[in-house]
Amino acid sequence: MQFEADLEAARARIADAVVRTPVWRSDDLDAALGREVWLKCEPLQRTGSFKLRGATNAVRALPAGVRGVVAVSSGNHAQAVAYAGRAAGLPVTVVMNADANAAKRAATVGYGATVVSDGVDPTNREEIARDLAEREGLAFVHPFDDWNVIAGQGTATLELLEDVPGLDAVVTPIGGGGLLSGAALACRDASPGTRVYGAEPAASPDAQRSLAEGRRVRLDYAPSTISDGARTVQIGERTFAVLSELCAGISLVNDDAARAAMALVWDTTKLLIEPTSALAIAAISAGSVPGERIGVVLSGGNVDAGVLAATIRVEESV
Amino acid sequence: MQFEADLEAARARIADAVVRTPVWRSDDLDAALGREVWLKCEPLQRTGSFKLRGATNAVRALPAGVRGVVAVSSGNHAQAVAYAGRAAGLPVTVVMNADANAAKRAATVGYGATVVSDGVDPTNREEIARDLAEREGLAFVHPFDDWNVIAGQGTATLELLEDVPGLDAVVTPIGGGGLLSGAALACRDASPGTRVYGAEPAASPDAQRSLAEGRRVRLDYAPSTISDGARTVQIGERTFAVLSELCAGISLVNDDAARAAMALVWDTTKLLIEPTSALAIAAISAGSVPGERIGVVLSGGNVDAGVLAATIRVEESV
Repeated sequence: MQFEADLEAARARIADAVVRTPVWRSDDLDAALGREVWLKCEPLQRTGSFKLRGATNAVRALPAGVRGVVAVSSGNHAQAVAYAGRAAGLPVTVVMNADANAAKRAATVGYGATVVSDGVDPTNREEIARDLAEREGLAFVHPFDDWNVIAGQGTATLELLEDVPGLDAVVTPIGGGGLLSGAALACRDASPGTRVYGAEPAASPDAQRSLAEGRRVRLDYAPSTISDGARTVQIGERTFAVLSELCAGISLVNDDAARAAMALVWDTTKLLIEPTSALAIAAISAGSVPGERIGVVLSGGNVDAGVLAATIRVEESV
Repeated sequence: MQFEADLEAARARIADAVVRTPVWRSDDLDAALGREVWLKCEPLQRTGSFKLRGATNAVRALPAGVRGVVAVSSGNHAQAVAYAGRAAGLPVTVVMNADANAAKRAATVGYGATVVSDGVDPTNREEIARDLAEREGLAFVHPFDDWNVIAGQGTATLELLEDVPGLDAVVTPIGGGGLLSGAALACRDASPGTRVYGAEPAASPDAQRSLAEGRRVRLDYAPSTISDGARTVQIGERTFAVLSELCAGISLVNDDAARAAMALVWDTTKLLIEPTSALAIAAISAGSVPGERIGVVLSGGNVDAGVLAATIRVEESV
């Protein structure tokens, strides 16, 4: 099938705005997982996650005359669109749940965005954003179901495949499917022998069930999981189409396994990843990903550092 | 003065055993500190700290016929000597306090060392180790007051100065003074215009007071600080001699400032550093280090990842 995501165009369009993040490997992590595991380090990306790639590509692809940008998110997409919009000289409005985490709100405001949250909840926020876009002539940037966003996210995997040719598999976390669809398209174009797997919270199995049932399943509850980047209740139309054709499988990961995988990565690589990133490591650890040389896109590192640091106590033994 | 630390010889001796760790810089960290701050990332070193450099240099410099190695430590030096000894094919015994942290004990045993801890406490452990060394024909590797250890630690700063020429200053944490003395000798040899500063816990100011008073001050209490790599009560004879001549100043840092600096580094670089590493960042943050381009040797990243990961909870807002 022909998909309307152009990864090479995205790469050229965003090259001066994003960091080419390092690919890292740790002997100790390999030993723990029994494989060679190559980590594409998007926690080191500007704004702390891969989301800047897709947001920048979407914002830069907007037609001339757009007066501003609007997005819905309480997390990494919010920060990414705020950053990308400011870099493009466009005002950004982010519609965020009224009870959103204060640190994430502050980070979004810190990148210059206006946050709208009065009366906003998960059931009405997309409608509020689309109304705002129509009323004020703003462009709505979807977090995943947009070919430019998918293409932008795919550039992370293109870089990984260049740095480490011949991988047996690439694994990424999946929420709405932008990162994983981008990875699948990158492998199709640049390394057809590499199989692509997703890792999803067991509490939020919309993608896994959608691929199993051959239709876009929508969860009728609000998923509760520490992997806050993957709480989506339904994947996109475009991401569903890509993944139906190009994804080799999706593993479900429970919170205990995600937490253990996160601690393993912290311990063996000293790289601070967020719980959503740990999903992919947990899937490898569970044996769900065949292959001896596996690439992982670590999606982001936005955990609350102040909360973590407060837990470091004086140990009396010297 | 002529000091008996040969950094170039150390570099050649340990080259195949240690990682040349990356030097990293973050726009967000620079903005927070108001300076260019170049981070030498020893948390990414094998065993998770710079200590492997000195331990490897000391072990490889031992005369033929040595039957094994003994060290005193509950922390990074223990793991480093265990690793270096195993790599050299020598049995390693580590004398560790009876109440030492279980994770650190396990890591040391994991690198193949024998741990002796029955009846061991901070007052008797060096004597126990030296007795053991004499009785069994083992070599005692001091954690800091040894020219080969100092030279090995200095290789981290040699690499930093090669990667980033023309630094105004280099800052490292100081416990017994091995890392800081190595840094001072590296700057003297390779970048004489670069000034060298130490950062020490306010609760454990033996180095700062020693340099101020011109004699090796010994604290008569067990310092209590989260920076567990810098709880030494007295710096070494050799490190005192080096630092008296070559150190531009030592800043005192309290635990709150160290914790804030640690969170700042986690937040802006996603690099998991341990509290001792944060001392140097806190000193810059406090304005104690003059200069616009500053190098920091981040000493290590061995925090208890499981404890930290357990504090990541589900946030209900999406």
